[in-house]
Amino acid sequence: MPIRITSHSNPAIKRIGSLRDKKHRRAEGRFLAEGLRICAEAVEAGQVPEQLVYAEASGGHPLVLRLVATVEAAGGTAIETTPDILTKLTGKDNPQAVLGVFRARVTALTDLDRHSAPMWVVAENLKDPGNLGTMLRTCDATGAGGVILLDASCDPFSVEAVRASMGALFTREVVQTDGAAFLAWLRQGEGMLVGASLEAAVDYQAVRYAAPTFVFMGNEQSGLPADYAEACDALVKLPMRGKADSLNVAVACAVLLYEVLNQARA
Amino acid sequence: MPIRITSHSNPAIKRIGSLRDKKHRRAEGRFLAEGLRICAEAVEAGQVPEQLVYAEASGGHPLVLRLVATVEAAGGTAIETTPDILTKLTGKDNPQAVLGVFRARVTALTDLDRHSAPMWVVAENLKDPGNLGTMLRTCDATGAGGVILLDASCDPFSVEAVRASMGALFTREVVQTDGAAFLAWLRQGEGMLVGASLEAAVDYQAVRYAAPTFVFMGNEQSGLPADYAEACDALVKLPMRGKADSLNVAVACAVLLYEVLNQARA
Repeated sequence: MPIRITSHSNPAIKRIGSLRDKKHRRAEGRFLAEGLRICAEAVEAGQVPEQLVYAEASGGHPLVLRLVATVEAAGGTAIETTPDILTKLTGKDNPQAVLGVFRARVTALTDLDRHSAPMWVVAENLKDPGNLGTMLRTCDATGAGGVILLDASCDPFSVEAVRASMGALFTREVVQTDGAAFLAWLRQGEGMLVGASLEAAVDYQAVRYAAPTFVFMGNEQSGLPADYAEACDALVKLPMRGKADSLNVAVACAVLLYEVLNQARA
Repeated sequence: MPIRITSHSNPAIKRIGSLRDKKHRRAEGRFLAEGLRICAEAVEAGQVPEQLVYAEASGGHPLVLRLVATVEAAGGTAIETTPDILTKLTGKDNPQAVLGVFRARVTALTDLDRHSAPMWVVAENLKDPGNLGTMLRTCDATGAGGVILLDASCDPFSVEAVRASMGALFTREVVQTDGAAFLAWLRQGEGMLVGASLEAAVDYQAVRYAAPTFVFMGNEQSGLPADYAEACDALVKLPMRGKADSLNVAVACAVLLYEVLNQARA
């Protein structure tokens, strides 16, 4: 049976709300995902929320009912609450129908099976969680295994990253490590490290990519640092016809991933 | 000489702040662009801000000084203010060094020279200004002429769209019209309308694109409506290897634009 909570000061509600902050996410090892579609995709990927919050009005929706049943069958808690509280929890005027609390799952680099996917994304100092979420979504679409985050990258479990990933956070691997550890791990096995660089001499379509390909994207502002660029097996550039000479990092990453995929399916 | 304003209630400051709202942008035909880089690119593209606001601390920066001189030479006003007021105007804790007020410039469909670029983006009911800005930025990178916004699409002059465009809003055309007017205009001349559709039977690399190519992207949630899809010369899909069967609209648009560009340069 769902619990019904109508008080903003209820400890369960306060704890869930606190997961909007990185500090609390890290301390609890839990994060939030908003929306029926994303929560349903999480369940399909085998990750059932520990808690599911929904507004009274959506309680009769068949998809919400099914999600509630799944959560309760897995030993989790369903919480029916007011639209007002859900608005506060999600920080949105028109809150999504549901909010799930999930256990944060990161993969240790040493546990990553590089041969489980033909390509991977490596991101250095990626700052924008929307970009990270979009990159995870593109990983899902192209069959890339996931994102290896280096150095001071953003939190993959922020609400913005989860939202932009459209559920891909639940189906892709996420690794958090640093550059030295990643490069040491990479060279213990097969893998072609391909850096995206505006200064590269080689067109991205002129390179033959070998699986597993690691597409290496630099920070939004500054691109790949020189020492990381030197560690790459190839440095490639996208053709640039414009004045600004730049692309959004998630866009550039997607164009590269589709090129690797296109070569593999050619 | 720059004007110095230190009061939040100064009418000039209040008016500039009001341009964060669409209603005021529309009434005034003006919009805001934040950041030295974007304002400098606007100037390079021939669009000098009518007003330039900067915080006292950045007044000595050579790039700010140059921008101030350009604005004043063009008859505009430079306003030196407090970090506090700049924070309020930009809605950011760490405001960019400068804020420019620009005249909104849209191109009427009938004034658009379709042959001025080999490809264009058409977006139907696009809702997210970040996506729109990213699409404009990709247009710049690929040499696409700009974005034709159909129906109830978002405001290209919102702070979020301008920011994501990274200056491309100043170098690309933006048209706001509706579907019927666009299709009537399109069929008065040359142009291949290519719709992106998950239901399409044809792989995006199997089509030969002819200039000018109009890449037609649907709404973030619902994709291209059936009647728009029927009006297309070709409907293409990107290969999807994942579970979620979706891509961010700006990402999908970029992969298509790069394919059109790659065919042209092959």
